[in-house]
Amino acid sequence: MRRGADGGLETAFLSLSVAAGQISHYTHGGYNGRVPGYTKDKQKIETRLRRIEGQVRGIQKMVEEDRYCIDVLTQVNATRAALESVALQLLADHTEHCVTEAIRSGGGKAKVRELNDAVERLVRS
Amino acid sequence: MRRGADGGLETAFLSLSVAAGQISHYTHGGYNGRVPGYTKDKQKIETRLRRIEGQVRGIQKMVEEDRYCIDVLTQVNATRAALESVALQLLADHTEHCVTEAIRSGGGKAKVRELNDAVERLVRS
Amino acid sequence: MRRGADGGLETAFLSLSVAAGQISHYTHGGYNGRVPGYTKDKQKIETRLRRIEGQVRGIQKMVEEDRYCIDVLTQVNATRAALESVALQLLADHTEHCVTEAIRSGGGKAKVRELNDAVERLVRS
Amino acid sequence: MRRGADGGLETAFLSLSVAAGQISHYTHGGYNGRVPGYTKDKQKIETRLRRIEGQVRGIQKMVEEDRYCIDVLTQVNATRAALESVALQLLADHTEHCVTEAIRSGGGKAKVRELNDAVERLVRS
Repeated sequence: MRRGADGGLETAFLSLSVAAGQISHYTHGGYNGRVPGYTKDKQKIETRLRRIEGQVRGIQKMVEEDRYCIDVLTQVNATRAALESVALQLLADHTEHCVTEAIRSGGGKAKVRELNDAVERLVRS
Repeated sequence: MRRGADGGLETAFLSLSVAAGQISHYTHGGYNGRVPGYTKDKQKIETRLRRIEGQVRGIQKMVEEDRYCIDVLTQVNATRAALESVALQLLADHTEHCVTEAIRSGGGKAKVRELNDAVERLVRS
Repeated sequence: MRRGADGGLETAFLSLSVAAGQISHYTHGGYNGRVPGYTKDKQKIETRLRRIEGQVRGIQKMVEEDRYCIDVLTQVNATRAALESVALQLLADHTEHCVTEAIRSGGGKAKVRELNDAVERLVRS
Repeated sequence: MRRGADGGLETAFLSLSVAAGQISHYTHGGYNGRVPGYTKDKQKIETRLRRIEGQVRGIQKMVEEDRYCIDVLTQVNATRAALESVALQLLADHTEHCVTEAIRSGGGKAKVRELNDAVERLVRS
């Protein structure tokens, strides 16, 4: 879903999504029709996620083939590390864009609280 | 090591390792025909990994649909937690079977060192 | 910056930075006389740190008394969790105050980058 | 079990448990007079813990002096990492000694379960 400088398309899209019902709003923190914070890194993130999907399938194959526990574990850890990198990328982009813009436009209190909760979940998960 | 239609070869190999007797546990990173520690939980682990693969695909879809950063992050964290559970299961099974058997058969020093390294990587990854 | 008996110098410095006005937030890693983000929670954090110091001394005593490994480990984990809470508190306060103020006063790019680095170190440590 | 001035009682107890022979490993959470798994690393662990105590006091001083949030956080992370190393040392020693001996003396099932629980808490804390 591209969102360019093209305001008309933007409006059309928003109307459409309001009509469609299902893409109706972001949760906690509010949705305002803006692109998400990770937009500029979208392709990079998608590539990483496809690679992670491949890693998970690779682990399934290892288990199916009764591969050695420690070798499977090594692959699971590598996949966890890759997911952690995606999480950090998403959070950094979110802070740099969504949170920064919310603060700049005079608010940001709820956004900051939401960010802090997200950091806590990330650290504790 | 594939386990395919060549059941004969597999059976022969297993017989050999049973006959050899003392070649009864995995060497560091190696495979010697014995079942891995997670054998009794194999189906459960495979089910979990398939679900994790589905979660990763779900995250890809969310990113493709420009879903809100924090919502994507929540799914990434859930997937990391699911992978962590698989890692803990693999490690527990490994300790309960591979490490225990290695110690019982008179050795286990290398196995214990390998286990400790795996725990360290798991804690630090 | 030491805050010792030389209260006069300190007061002078603080007045100066209030007068200077625009030197109103911390630079990367620096200190410029403004209160840090955790000021409102300072007492709570100090109390927690004293308790953590007590926990560490308790662990020392357990080791000295040759207490059971797993019992010592349980205390080490509890202390790590307490330190993690302090870290999350510091980070939340920092985001809510220092980062927010930096963005509000028109900048914040370096602050956001510094915050993202801190989150990454926290998640990976 | 206190190890105070009553060294005689302690010695007597140790002799008794050596004499008893088969009561040769810790029960779940208990202590029975055998040395803990970390005995050979005791001095190293005590040195580390004293250094960690010093780090915690250093953090208290930083907070008292209103030092910059990120600088305090960096010290908190360093202290968490130091505690994590102690935890990994304790766990490795425990596996190498207590768990190994329990398995060698014909049992070890409860010990392995307890170890797996400890690894899980360590990974999740």
